[in-house]
Amino acid sequence: VTTLCLQTAAEVALVGELSDSIRVVVWDGAGEPPPNIADVDLFVASYMEPPVPDEALARMSRLRVIQVLSAGVEAWLPRVPPGVMLCNGRGVHGGSTAELAVAGVTSLLRELPRWREAQRAHEWVDAATDGSDGKRVVIIGSGDIGRRIGSALAAFGADVIYVNRSGHDGAHALSELPSLLPDAGVVILALPLTDESRGLVDGRFLAAMPDGAILANIARGKLVDTDALLAQLSSGRLSAFLDVTDPEPLPADHPLWDAPNLLLTPHIGGGTRGWDERAYRLVREQVLRLDAGVPLHNVVVG
Amino acid sequence: VTTLCLQTAAEVALVGELSDSIRVVVWDGAGEPPPNIADVDLFVASYMEPPVPDEALARMSRLRVIQVLSAGVEAWLPRVPPGVMLCNGRGVHGGSTAELAVAGVTSLLRELPRWREAQRAHEWVDAATDGSDGKRVVIIGSGDIGRRIGSALAAFGADVIYVNRSGHDGAHALSELPSLLPDAGVVILALPLTDESRGLVDGRFLAAMPDGAILANIARGKLVDTDALLAQLSSGRLSAFLDVTDPEPLPADHPLWDAPNLLLTPHIGGGTRGWDERAYRLVREQVLRLDAGVPLHNVVVG
Repeated sequence: VTTLCLQTAAEVALVGELSDSIRVVVWDGAGEPPPNIADVDLFVASYMEPPVPDEALARMSRLRVIQVLSAGVEAWLPRVPPGVMLCNGRGVHGGSTAELAVAGVTSLLRELPRWREAQRAHEWVDAATDGSDGKRVVIIGSGDIGRRIGSALAAFGADVIYVNRSGHDGAHALSELPSLLPDAGVVILALPLTDESRGLVDGRFLAAMPDGAILANIARGKLVDTDALLAQLSSGRLSAFLDVTDPEPLPADHPLWDAPNLLLTPHIGGGTRGWDERAYRLVREQVLRLDAGVPLHNVVVG
Repeated sequence: VTTLCLQTAAEVALVGELSDSIRVVVWDGAGEPPPNIADVDLFVASYMEPPVPDEALARMSRLRVIQVLSAGVEAWLPRVPPGVMLCNGRGVHGGSTAELAVAGVTSLLRELPRWREAQRAHEWVDAATDGSDGKRVVIIGSGDIGRRIGSALAAFGADVIYVNRSGHDGAHALSELPSLLPDAGVVILALPLTDESRGLVDGRFLAAMPDGAILANIARGKLVDTDALLAQLSSGRLSAFLDVTDPEPLPADHPLWDAPNLLLTPHIGGGTRGWDERAYRLVREQVLRLDAGVPLHNVVVG
């Protein structure tokens, strides 16, 4: 018997019918736990509920797997009890996050905000814009999201290269960035936030990018030094597309809102309608695998 | 000896140095022709100059090839003299036209104009948008541009199918559209304008699309019945992205400018900076092939 713990009844409905050997318990992590909480094998951290406290996890004394539904797991990494596996939501948000990155970068390149103004003014302007054809695009992060972004931009003729920590899987290593950034017309951040990557994009990083280049961040706000980016945007030297910020949410009086050459969306990358069906299809698959003794997908720790 | 005719000195510079067996003459098609005009083998119709008259073409009595630099050749088709080959600019604008189509469609799906307003108002809104992951996208036209659009959207998880005239190359036939449109969340026009395709998207076509669907046209304005589209946009049933219109350019007092649910750009699809280098790289390749007796690229007629 395998026991799955979900935080809300809505999630039970999304997972749908399971086999007889799988039991489902519902506990939001607050209030009184159900009697069989100690039997839980797989706990799914809800996207919609506040994070469960460590005390709640400790009640699940036989816990084997924590399933998170986002791609980034930085908040969970220090919380995984010894011997417990941590799985992420790779694939659930990959398509829509990559879509948003490409939407933002191509909007800047093709000047869509300018054409929106021209449309309002009833002005048909004869003009050429920038574009990604023939442009060097550096994607930092070579996981699911980064590769999807690269595939899309390559279809437009962009010259795409990938960078990851150690240069595995045909990518360049982070240590090569100083020689790669001066040719980068576009730099896209699609890497996890870790102690090593925090603040990766600082003043020196941005200064190495060429005039007129674009920085896009659809990963985590803390990868970028906000003040350093603000200085580059204000000087007009760089443009940026940000779906994530530091701080986040951005306070109403923060200077980033009014920075020139910036397109900003409120962390909507993975949050398209229908994401929940994709997410709980993954949960269903994972619990069936655990019950059958088959290796799980998306293992980050364990 | 092979003789290449270009319309401006700027184009000669873009083509660069050629082999000794190739001669270049420059004639804009007006004024007095150069003495060796009758020797011209390959005439390149400039993008930047007014179209040469038929009388000018008739002076090139040994003409073998007309090279056009756009993907669409509808204006040239009726003008090709007997025995002369017509080549188009396939590949020159493909990447950037596909990029614009994807920029426009994803801007609508992810509501980028709405986030632009929220940015201006300093509002961080917690919201989910639509997206292409899992959505059926019907691309009408399965040439270079259509396939590039499809590759990009497939990277975001879209369920892409292609339609062409007869259903060749793994695509569906135009005759199947009545059964395909009711499931199409997005329809993208990437087909040539011909007598058959003119007005393809009429009131009946649009009525067959489901509520909330998006129509994108980056091909030619006359593929769409503007009044029928206006009615659907005004009712709020469909959204659209148009880079081409009928009439074009759109007069300042045309009702399309203010139609709701419409994103409009002024035919900037292929016109990114750097297109001219790509175009004259193709011209160079074509004249070298003609001189060497090797089959040319992008043959449309002949």
